[in-house]
Amino acid sequence: MSSKELIYQAAAKLFKEKGYAATSMRELALQVGIEASSLYNHIKSKEEILQEICLRNAGKFTDGMKIIQENSNLNALQKLESIIRLHVQIASDDISSVTVFNDEWKHLKEPALSDFLKLRIQYEQSVKSIIQEGIEKELLKKVDIEVALFSFLTSLRWIHYKFAKGRISSDRLTENLKNILIFGLAKS
Amino acid sequence: MSSKELIYQAAAKLFKEKGYAATSMRELALQVGIEASSLYNHIKSKEEILQEICLRNAGKFTDGMKIIQENSNLNALQKLESIIRLHVQIASDDISSVTVFNDEWKHLKEPALSDFLKLRIQYEQSVKSIIQEGIEKELLKKVDIEVALFSFLTSLRWIHYKFAKGRISSDRLTENLKNILIFGLAKS
Repeated sequence: MSSKELIYQAAAKLFKEKGYAATSMRELALQVGIEASSLYNHIKSKEEILQEICLRNAGKFTDGMKIIQENSNLNALQKLESIIRLHVQIASDDISSVTVFNDEWKHLKEPALSDFLKLRIQYEQSVKSIIQEGIEKELLKKVDIEVALFSFLTSLRWIHYKFAKGRISSDRLTENLKNILIFGLAKS
Repeated sequence: MSSKELIYQAAAKLFKEKGYAATSMRELALQVGIEASSLYNHIKSKEEILQEICLRNAGKFTDGMKIIQENSNLNALQKLESIIRLHVQIASDDISSVTVFNDEWKHLKEPALSDFLKLRIQYEQSVKSIIQEGIEKELLKKVDIEVALFSFLTSLRWIHYKFAKGRISSDRLTENLKNILIFGLAKS
C-alpha cells in the first residue's frame, strides 16, 4: 500500500472516531507513524484528505448505480434490490471511510462541496427514476415518490452505524433489507 | 403563554438553526426580547433549557407509546401504523423542538443524559416487542428483528428534515409511510 493510501486509511479511522474538525495533523502523523512534517510530502492538507475520502466513496456509489441502471435485464424491483446490495457492500468494505463520507462531508470546502452535492443529487435522481419506472410498470404501489425515496435511502444511509460489528452477514442484511424495504414487514 | 414557555420556544428555534453549542444566552435574550440578565429570573442555564426540550419530547413519545401498547383492540400491524402516526404528529406539532430533541441530545449532561437514553432504549424496546408480537401472530414476515427495528425507526426519526415545509399533509405522509414501511413498495 502506498504512503498516501496509508494516510487516507489512518485519517478515515481518526475522522470517524473523533470527527474531522477535532482531528489534528499531529495526531494523524502519530497514527501513521511518521513525523508531522513528513505528512506534507504526501498530502497537501487535511481538507485534501477529506475530499479524497468523500469523493472516492461518492464515486463508488455513482459507479455502482451506473452498472445497475445500464443492466437492461433488471426490472425496477431488481434494481432496488441491487441498490440495497450496493449500500451493504460499500458499508462493509470500509466502515471508517463510509462513515466519514456520510457524517463529515459538511466540512468540505468549495469547489469540492459543490461537486459532492452534485453527485449526491444525481444519485438520488437515479433512485427516484427507478421508483418512477417501477410505478409506471405497475411493479410498485402508487406511493408518493418523495416519501418513498426518502424512506428507502434514509434506511440505507445509516446501516453502517448499526450493523458494523459483524452481527449479521452482508447477505443476510441485504436479504432482510430487501424484504423490509421492498416487500414490506407485513406478511402478505 | 408563560415567559418560561416563550424562552423554550425561542431557544428551540435558535438551537435548531445554529446548533445548541453555537447559541449564546445573549442571542437567546435578544430573540425573546428581554435583557440577558432577566433570562436568569426564569431559567437556570442553557443546559436546563436543552433538558426541558429533550425530556418533553421524549415524554410525548413515551406517552404516545403507552396509549398504543395499552389499546388491546389493536393488532401489531395497527400498532405499527399508530407509531407512524405518532411520529408524524409530533414532528408536525413543533418542528423546532423535535429537531433539537433529535439532533442535539448528545449535549445533555448527566444525569439528564442517562435519563434520556433510558427512555430511548425503553421506546425502542417497545417497538421491538410489537414487531416480535407481529411475527409470532404471523402478521409480519419472519424478518431479523434488529434490522426491522432499525429500518422502521430510522425512517421515522428523520421525517422532520424532509417534510417540514408542508409539502405533504400529515395524513398523506402517514398513509404513504404506512404503505411503504409496513406493506412495502412492491405492488402485491
